[in-house]
Amino acid sequence: MAQPRKTRTPRTGRRPGASGSREAILEAARTLFAEHGYSATSMRAIGTAAGVDAALIVHFFGSKARLLREAIEWPFDPVEAAERVYAKGRRNVGEQLARLVVETWEREGDRSAIMTLLRAATVEPSAAEMLREFMQDELAPPLFQRLNPDQPDLRAGLATAQIVGLGMARYVLRLEPLASMTSDEVIAWVAPTLQRYLTGKAP
Amino acid sequence: MAQPRKTRTPRTGRRPGASGSREAILEAARTLFAEHGYSATSMRAIGTAAGVDAALIVHFFGSKARLLREAIEWPFDPVEAAERVYAKGRRNVGEQLARLVVETWEREGDRSAIMTLLRAATVEPSAAEMLREFMQDELAPPLFQRLNPDQPDLRAGLATAQIVGLGMARYVLRLEPLASMTSDEVIAWVAPTLQRYLTGKAP
Repeated sequence: MAQPRKTRTPRTGRRPGASGSREAILEAARTLFAEHGYSATSMRAIGTAAGVDAALIVHFFGSKARLLREAIEWPFDPVEAAERVYAKGRRNVGEQLARLVVETWEREGDRSAIMTLLRAATVEPSAAEMLREFMQDELAPPLFQRLNPDQPDLRAGLATAQIVGLGMARYVLRLEPLASMTSDEVIAWVAPTLQRYLTGKAP
Repeated sequence: MAQPRKTRTPRTGRRPGASGSREAILEAARTLFAEHGYSATSMRAIGTAAGVDAALIVHFFGSKARLLREAIEWPFDPVEAAERVYAKGRRNVGEQLARLVVETWEREGDRSAIMTLLRAATVEPSAAEMLREFMQDELAPPLFQRLNPDQPDLRAGLATAQIVGLGMARYVLRLEPLASMTSDEVIAWVAPTLQRYLTGKAP
Protein backbone atom coordinates (compact mmCIF):
# COMPACT_ATOMS: atom_id res chain seq x y z
CA MET A 1 0.00 0.00 0.00
CA ALA A 2 1.21 3.51 -0.88
CA GLN A 3 2.40 5.78 1.87
CA PRO A 4 -0.25 8.28 2.92
CA ARG A 5 0.45 11.77 1.65
CA LYS A 6 0.59 14.40 4.33
CA THR A 7 -1.65 16.90 2.61
CA ARG A 8 -4.39 16.91 5.22
CA THR A 9 -4.50 17.45 8.91
CA PRO A 10 -7.07 15.72 11.05
CA ARG A 11 -9.65 18.17 12.33
CA THR A 12 -9.55 16.66 15.74
CA GLY A 13 -6.90 14.19 16.70
CA ARG A 14 -5.54 13.04 19.97
CA ARG A 15 -2.44 11.97 18.14
CA PRO A 16 -1.00 14.53 15.80
CA GLY A 17 0.68 13.60 12.54
CA ALA A 18 -0.38 11.33 9.73
CA SER A 19 1.23 8.15 11.04
CA GLY A 20 -0.30 8.62 14.49
CA SER A 21 -3.73 9.15 12.95
CA ARG A 22 -3.29 6.18 10.68
CA GLU A 23 -2.43 3.95 13.64
CA ALA A 24 -5.35 5.32 15.64
CA ILE A 25 -7.72 4.55 12.76
CA LEU A 26 -6.40 1.00 12.43
CA GLU A 27 -6.73 0.40 16.16
CA ALA A 28 -10.28 1.78 16.26
CA ALA A 29 -11.28 -0.27 13.21
CA ARG A 30 -9.80 -3.44 14.71
CA THR A 31 -11.75 -2.96 17.93
CA LEU A 32 -15.07 -1.97 16.35
CA PHE A 33 -15.03 -4.64 13.61
CA ALA A 34 -14.38 -7.32 16.27
CA GLU A 35 -17.04 -5.99 18.65
CA HIS A 36 -19.87 -4.99 16.34
CA GLY A 37 -19.00 -6.61 13.05
CA TYR A 38 -17.98 -5.09 9.76
CA SER A 39 -21.44 -4.17 8.46
CA ALA A 40 -22.59 -2.49 11.65
CA THR A 41 -19.43 -0.38 11.90
CA SER A 42 -19.52 2.87 9.93
CA MET A 43 -16.54 4.90 8.80
CA ARG A 44 -17.98 7.69 10.91
CA ALA A 45 -17.94 5.50 14.05
CA ILE A 46 -14.33 4.53 13.36
CA GLY A 47 -13.46 8.19 12.87
CA THR A 48 -15.10 9.15 16.15
CA ALA A 49 -13.30 6.38 18.05
CA ALA A 50 -9.99 7.34 16.47
CA GLY A 51 -10.53 11.06 16.99
CA VAL A 52 -10.25 11.88 13.29
CA ASP A 53 -12.61 12.96 10.57
CA ALA A 54 -14.13 10.15 8.51
CA ALA A 55 -12.79 11.85 5.35
CA LEU A 56 -9.27 11.17 6.57
CA ILE A 57 -10.05 7.44 6.67
CA VAL A 58 -11.07 7.56 3.03
CA HIS A 59 -7.94 9.54 2.29
CA PHE A 60 -5.70 6.94 3.95
CA PHE A 61 -7.48 3.70 3.04
CA GLY A 62 -9.80 4.37 0.11
CA SER A 63 -12.63 2.05 1.18
CA LYS A 64 -13.96 0.18 4.17
CA ALA A 65 -12.90 -3.15 2.61
CA ARG A 66 -9.30 -1.88 2.26
CA LEU A 67 -9.39 -0.65 5.84
CA LEU A 68 -10.59 -4.10 6.92
CA ARG A 69 -7.67 -5.71 5.14
CA GLU A 70 -5.16 -3.34 6.72
CA ALA A 71 -6.70 -3.41 10.19
CA ILE A 72 -7.16 -7.13 10.67
CA GLU A 73 -3.87 -8.82 11.22
CA TRP A 74 -3.88 -12.36 9.96
CA PRO A 75 -2.95 -14.47 12.99
CA PHE A 76 0.05 -16.14 11.40
CA ASP A 77 2.66 -15.23 8.86
CA PRO A 78 1.92 -17.35 5.77
CA VAL A 79 5.58 -17.93 4.93
CA GLU A 80 6.53 -18.99 8.47
CA ALA A 81 3.37 -21.09 8.71
CA ALA A 82 4.34 -22.90 5.51
CA GLU A 83 7.60 -23.97 7.16
CA ARG A 84 5.61 -25.68 9.90
CA VAL A 85 3.13 -27.21 7.46
CA TYR A 86 5.95 -28.81 5.45
CA ALA A 87 8.16 -29.71 8.42
CA LYS A 88 7.03 -33.36 8.48
CA GLY A 89 7.04 -33.94 4.75
CA ARG A 90 4.50 -34.08 2.00
CA ARG A 91 2.56 -36.98 3.50
CA ASN A 92 1.79 -34.99 6.64
CA VAL A 93 0.74 -31.64 5.20
CA GLY A 94 -2.93 -32.41 5.89
CA GLU A 95 -2.30 -33.00 9.56
CA GLN A 96 0.09 -30.08 9.90
CA LEU A 97 -2.31 -27.71 8.16
CA ALA A 98 -5.16 -28.90 10.38
CA ARG A 99 -2.91 -28.33 13.41
CA LEU A 100 -2.01 -24.83 12.25
CA VAL A 101 -5.60 -23.69 11.90
CA VAL A 102 -7.09 -25.54 14.87
CA GLU A 103 -4.37 -24.33 17.22
CA THR A 104 -4.67 -20.78 15.91
CA TRP A 105 -8.40 -20.88 16.63
CA GLU A 106 -7.83 -22.54 19.99
CA ARG A 107 -5.69 -19.59 21.04
CA GLU A 108 -8.00 -16.93 19.68
CA GLY A 109 -11.40 -18.61 19.48
CA ASP A 110 -14.37 -16.78 18.19
CA ARG A 111 -12.52 -13.45 18.30
CA SER A 112 -9.89 -14.60 15.86
CA ALA A 113 -9.20 -12.29 12.96
CA ILE A 114 -10.16 -15.18 10.70
CA MET A 115 -13.68 -15.19 12.15
CA THR A 116 -13.96 -11.40 11.89
CA LEU A 117 -13.04 -11.64 8.22
CA LEU A 118 -15.40 -14.55 7.55
CA ARG A 119 -18.26 -12.70 9.24
CA ALA A 120 -17.56 -9.63 7.13
CA ALA A 121 -17.33 -11.73 3.97
CA THR A 122 -20.68 -13.42 4.56
CA VAL A 123 -22.55 -10.14 4.68
CA GLU A 124 -20.62 -7.85 2.33
CA PRO A 125 -19.50 -8.83 -1.17
CA SER A 126 -16.67 -6.25 -1.04
CA ALA A 127 -15.26 -7.93 2.07
CA ALA A 128 -15.65 -11.36 0.44
CA GLU A 129 -13.68 -10.10 -2.54
CA MET A 130 -10.97 -8.72 -0.28
CA LEU A 131 -10.71 -12.01 1.62
CA ARG A 132 -10.65 -14.01 -1.61
CA GLU A 133 -7.79 -11.88 -2.93
CA PHE A 134 -5.87 -12.24 0.31
CA MET A 135 -6.31 -16.02 0.23
CA GLN A 136 -5.30 -16.29 -3.42
CA ASP A 137 -2.42 -13.83 -3.32
CA GLU A 138 -0.91 -14.23 0.13
CA LEU A 139 -2.02 -17.50 1.70
CA ALA A 140 -2.20 -19.98 -1.13
CA PRO A 141 1.23 -19.38 -2.78
CA PRO A 142 3.44 -20.16 0.23
CA LEU A 143 1.11 -22.78 1.69
CA PHE A 144 0.10 -24.77 -1.36
CA GLN A 145 2.36 -24.11 -4.35
CA ARG A 146 5.23 -26.19 -3.02
CA LEU A 147 3.07 -29.31 -3.39
CA ASN A 148 3.01 -28.70 -7.12
CA PRO A 149 -0.19 -30.68 -7.70
CA ASP A 150 -2.46 -30.77 -10.69
CA GLN A 151 -5.20 -28.11 -10.35
CA PRO A 152 -3.42 -26.18 -7.56
CA ASP A 153 -6.13 -23.50 -7.27
CA LEU A 154 -8.87 -26.09 -6.95
CA ARG A 155 -6.96 -27.96 -4.25
CA ALA A 156 -6.33 -24.76 -2.32
CA GLY A 157 -10.04 -23.96 -2.62
CA LEU A 158 -11.15 -27.38 -1.39
CA ALA A 159 -8.79 -27.19 1.59
CA THR A 160 -10.07 -23.69 2.34
CA ALA A 161 -13.66 -24.95 2.15
CA GLN A 162 -12.96 -27.64 4.76
CA ILE A 163 -11.12 -25.20 7.02
CA VAL A 164 -13.79 -22.51 6.79
CA GLY A 165 -16.53 -25.06 7.44
CA LEU A 166 -14.72 -26.42 10.47
CA GLY A 167 -14.40 -22.91 11.86
CA MET A 168 -18.09 -22.22 11.26
CA ALA A 169 -19.24 -25.52 12.79
CA ARG A 170 -16.93 -25.39 15.82
CA TYR A 171 -16.88 -21.67 16.65
CA VAL A 172 -19.98 -20.09 15.12
CA LEU A 173 -22.67 -22.78 15.06
CA ARG A 174 -20.97 -24.51 18.01
CA LEU A 175 -22.22 -27.93 17.02
CA GLU A 176 -21.61 -30.44 19.78
CA PRO A 177 -19.53 -32.49 20.39
CA LEU A 178 -17.37 -30.84 17.70
CA ALA A 179 -17.26 -27.57 19.63
CA SER A 180 -15.96 -29.18 22.85
CA MET A 181 -13.55 -31.74 21.46
CA THR A 182 -9.83 -31.34 22.00
CA SER A 183 -7.65 -29.95 19.22
CA ASP A 184 -6.05 -33.36 18.73
CA GLU A 185 -9.40 -35.10 18.27
CA VAL A 186 -10.55 -32.55 15.70
CA ILE A 187 -7.21 -32.67 13.86
CA ALA A 188 -7.38 -36.48 13.65
CA TRP A 189 -10.77 -36.32 11.93
CA VAL A 190 -10.03 -33.48 9.53
CA ALA A 191 -6.40 -34.17 8.58
CA PRO A 192 -7.16 -36.99 6.08
CA THR A 193 -9.62 -34.72 4.26
CA LEU A 194 -7.05 -31.94 3.88
CA GLN A 195 -4.41 -34.44 2.86
CA ARG A 196 -6.64 -35.85 0.12
CA TYR A 197 -7.62 -32.41 -1.15
CA LEU A 198 -3.99 -31.27 -1.26
CA THR A 199 -2.14 -34.34 -2.52
CA GLY A 200 -4.68 -37.06 -3.32
CA LYS A 201 -5.65 -38.33 -6.71
CA ALA A 202 -8.25 -36.30 -8.57
CA PRO A 203 -11.56 -38.17 -8.78
CA MET B 1 -45.37 -23.35 17.17
CA ALA B 2 -48.53 -22.31 19.00
CA GLN B 3 -51.37 -20.75 17.03
CA PRO B 4 -51.43 -16.98 17.36
CA ARG B 5 -54.15 -15.74 19.64
CA LYS B 6 -56.50 -13.27 18.07
CA THR B 7 -56.48 -10.76 20.89
CA ARG B 8 -54.97 -7.89 18.93
CA THR B 9 -55.79 -6.16 15.74
CA PRO B 10 -53.09 -4.65 13.60
CA ARG B 11 -53.21 -0.87 13.67
CA THR B 12 -52.68 -0.65 9.99
CA GLY B 13 -52.95 -3.66 7.81
CA ARG B 14 -53.54 -4.15 4.16
CA ARG B 15 -54.69 -7.64 4.99
CA PRO B 16 -57.15 -7.88 7.83
CA GLY B 17 -57.26 -10.79 10.25
CA ALA B 18 -54.55 -12.47 12.25
CA SER B 19 -53.63 -15.14 9.71
CA GLY B 20 -53.40 -12.58 6.89
CA SER B 21 -51.15 -10.38 9.01
CA ARG B 22 -49.04 -13.35 10.03
CA GLU B 23 -48.52 -14.30 6.39
CA ALA B 24 -47.72 -10.71 5.45
CA ILE B 25 -45.10 -10.55 8.21
CA LEU B 26 -43.50 -13.81 7.08
CA GLU B 27 -43.39 -12.65 3.49
CA ALA B 28 -41.88 -9.28 4.41
CA ALA B 29 -39.30 -10.94 6.68
CA ARG B 30 -38.34 -13.43 3.96
CA THR B 31 -37.79 -10.64 1.44
CA LEU B 32 -35.93 -8.26 3.77
CA PHE B 33 -33.69 -10.93 5.34
CA ALA B 34 -32.69 -12.11 1.87
CA GLU B 35 -32.09 -8.59 0.53
CA HIS B 36 -30.47 -6.80 3.44
CA GLY B 37 -29.46 -9.58 5.82
CA TYR B 38 -30.74 -10.49 9.22
CA SER B 39 -28.78 -7.95 11.26
CA ALA B 40 -29.61 -4.98 9.09
CA THR B 41 -33.34 -5.79 9.10
CA SER B 42 -35.25 -4.38 12.06
CA MET B 43 -38.59 -5.59 13.38
CA ARG B 44 -39.85 -2.09 12.61
CA ALA B 45 -38.82 -2.39 8.94
CA ILE B 46 -40.55 -5.75 8.68
CA GLY B 47 -43.65 -4.24 10.27
CA THR B 48 -43.64 -1.35 7.82
CA ALA B 49 -43.24 -3.68 4.83
CA ALA B 50 -46.00 -5.94 6.11
CA GLY B 51 -48.28 -3.05 6.99
CA VAL B 52 -48.52 -4.01 10.66
CA ASP B 53 -47.22 -2.65 13.94
CA ALA B 54 -43.89 -4.08 15.10
CA ALA B 55 -45.56 -5.05 18.38
CA LEU B 56 -47.73 -7.49 16.49
CA ILE B 57 -44.59 -9.26 15.22
CA VAL B 58 -43.42 -9.75 18.79
CA HIS B 59 -46.89 -10.96 19.68
CA PHE B 60 -46.89 -13.56 16.90
CA PHE B 61 -43.26 -14.66 16.89
CA GLY B 62 -41.67 -13.65 20.19
CA SER B 63 -38.23 -12.76 18.82
CA LYS B 64 -36.43 -11.96 15.60
CA ALA B 65 -34.62 -15.33 15.73
CA ARG B 66 -37.97 -17.16 15.94
CA LEU B 67 -39.30 -15.08 13.08
CA LEU B 68 -36.21 -16.01 11.05
CA ARG B 69 -36.87 -19.68 11.70
CA GLU B 70 -40.53 -19.39 10.67
CA ALA B 71 -39.91 -17.14 7.67
CA ILE B 72 -37.06 -18.96 5.99
CA GLU B 73 -38.29 -22.13 4.40
CA TRP B 74 -35.63 -24.79 4.33
CA PRO B 75 -35.28 -25.69 0.65
CA PHE B 76 -35.97 -29.39 1.09
CA ASP B 77 -38.06 -31.54 3.37
CA PRO B 78 -35.58 -33.43 5.59
CA VAL B 79 -37.64 -36.64 5.62
CA GLU B 80 -38.10 -36.73 1.83
CA ALA B 81 -34.45 -35.75 1.34
CA ALA B 82 -33.39 -38.67 3.52
CA GLU B 83 -35.18 -41.04 1.14
CA ARG B 84 -33.02 -39.75 -1.70
CA VAL B 85 -29.84 -39.83 0.37
CA TYR B 86 -30.40 -43.50 1.25
CA ALA B 87 -31.77 -44.57 -2.14
CA LYS B 88 -28.45 -46.05 -3.31
CA GLY B 89 -27.50 -47.72 -0.08
CA ARG B 90 -25.19 -47.00 2.80
CA ARG B 91 -22.05 -46.93 0.69
CA ASN B 92 -23.35 -44.06 -1.40
CA VAL B 93 -24.72 -41.73 1.26
CA GLY B 94 -21.73 -39.41 0.90
CA GLU B 95 -22.31 -38.93 -2.79
CA GLN B 96 -26.08 -38.65 -2.44
CA LEU B 97 -25.78 -36.11 0.36
CA ALA B 98 -23.28 -34.09 -1.68
CA ARG B 99 -25.72 -34.23 -4.61
CA LEU B 100 -28.62 -33.08 -2.44
CA VAL B 101 -26.83 -29.97 -1.17
CA VAL B 102 -24.95 -29.03 -4.34
CA GLU B 103 -28.07 -29.36 -6.50
CA THR B 104 -30.12 -27.39 -3.99
CA TRP B 105 -27.55 -24.60 -4.13
CA GLU B 106 -27.30 -24.85 -7.89
CA ARG B 107 -31.03 -24.12 -8.14
CA GLU B 108 -31.06 -21.33 -5.59
CA GLY B 109 -27.47 -20.08 -5.48
CA ASP B 110 -26.46 -17.32 -3.21
CA ARG B 111 -30.07 -16.49 -2.42
CA SER B 112 -30.76 -19.91 -0.98
CA ALA B 113 -32.41 -19.97 2.41
CA ILE B 114 -29.38 -21.90 3.62
CA MET B 115 -27.12 -18.95 2.80
CA THR B 116 -29.52 -16.48 4.41
CA LEU B 117 -29.45 -18.55 7.59
CA LEU B 118 -25.66 -18.95 7.52
CA ARG B 119 -25.20 -15.23 7.05
CA ALA B 120 -27.51 -14.53 9.98
CA ALA B 121 -25.72 -17.11 12.12
CA THR B 122 -22.28 -15.61 11.49
CA VAL B 123 -23.28 -12.22 12.82
CA GLU B 124 -25.88 -12.97 15.50
CA PRO B 125 -25.45 -15.61 18.22
CA SER B 126 -29.26 -15.91 18.58
CA ALA B 127 -29.54 -16.86 14.91
CA ALA B 128 -26.63 -19.30 15.26
CA GLU B 129 -28.44 -20.94 18.17
CA MET B 130 -31.64 -21.17 16.16
CA LEU B 131 -29.83 -22.75 13.21
CA ARG B 132 -27.99 -25.17 15.49
CA GLU B 133 -31.29 -26.30 17.02
CA PHE B 134 -32.86 -26.71 13.60
CA MET B 135 -29.91 -28.81 12.42
CA GLN B 136 -29.87 -30.97 15.53
CA ASP B 137 -33.64 -31.40 15.89
CA GLU B 138 -34.93 -31.49 12.33
CA LEU B 139 -32.11 -32.22 9.89
CA ALA B 140 -29.84 -34.65 11.68
CA PRO B 141 -32.41 -37.22 12.89
CA PRO B 142 -33.87 -38.20 9.50
CA LEU B 143 -30.63 -37.70 7.58
CA PHE B 144 -28.07 -39.31 9.85
CA GLN B 145 -29.66 -41.52 12.51
CA ARG B 146 -30.41 -44.34 10.11
CA LEU B 147 -26.71 -44.93 9.68
CA ASN B 148 -26.52 -45.81 13.35
CA PRO B 149 -22.81 -45.00 13.67
CA ASP B 150 -20.70 -44.54 16.75
CA GLN B 151 -20.69 -40.85 17.77
CA PRO B 152 -23.70 -39.90 15.59
CA ASP B 153 -23.70 -36.24 16.68
CA LEU B 154 -20.03 -35.83 15.88
CA ARG B 155 -20.47 -37.37 12.44
CA ALA B 156 -23.43 -35.13 11.69
CA GLY B 157 -21.34 -32.15 12.81
CA LEU B 158 -18.38 -33.09 10.64
CA ALA B 159 -20.60 -33.56 7.59
CA THR B 160 -22.25 -30.22 8.32
CA ALA B 161 -18.83 -28.57 8.60
CA GLN B 162 -17.85 -29.83 5.15
CA ILE B 163 -21.18 -28.79 3.62
CA VAL B 164 -21.15 -25.32 5.19
CA GLY B 165 -17.55 -24.78 4.12
CA LEU B 166 -18.32 -25.82 0.58
CA GLY B 167 -21.20 -23.36 0.46
CA MET B 168 -19.02 -20.57 1.82
CA ALA B 169 -16.14 -21.27 -0.58
CA ARG B 170 -18.30 -21.73 -3.69
CA TYR B 171 -21.06 -19.16 -3.16
CA VAL B 172 -19.75 -16.54 -0.70
CA LEU B 173 -15.97 -16.37 -1.20
CA ARG B 174 -16.40 -17.60 -4.80
CA LEU B 175 -12.99 -19.22 -4.90
CA GLU B 176 -12.09 -20.24 -8.42
CA PRO B 177 -12.23 -22.74 -10.00
CA LEU B 178 -14.49 -24.18 -7.27
CA ALA B 179 -17.13 -21.53 -7.92
CA SER B 180 -17.40 -22.32 -11.65
CA MET B 181 -17.09 -26.09 -11.64
CA THR B 182 -20.07 -28.24 -12.55
CA SER B 183 -22.14 -29.89 -9.84
CA ASP B 184 -20.81 -33.31 -10.81
CA GLU B 185 -17.19 -32.22 -10.50
CA VAL B 186 -17.77 -30.73 -7.05
CA ILE B 187 -19.74 -33.78 -5.91
CA ALA B 188 -16.94 -36.11 -7.03
CA TRP B 189 -14.42 -34.26 -4.87
CA VAL B 190 -16.55 -33.83 -1.76
CA ALA B 191 -18.47 -37.14 -1.68
CA PRO B 192 -15.60 -39.24 -0.24
CA THR B 193 -15.18 -36.76 2.60
CA LEU B 194 -18.86 -36.94 3.53
CA GLN B 195 -18.81 -40.72 3.20
CA ARG B 196 -15.86 -41.00 5.58
CA TYR B 197 -17.37 -38.62 8.11
CA LEU B 198 -20.69 -40.47 8.07
CA THR B 199 -19.68 -44.12 7.86
CA GLY B 200 -15.87 -44.31 8.03
CA LYS B 201 -13.79 -45.66 10.87
CA ALA B 202 -13.11 -43.22 13.70
CA PRO B 203 -9.44 -42.13 13.73
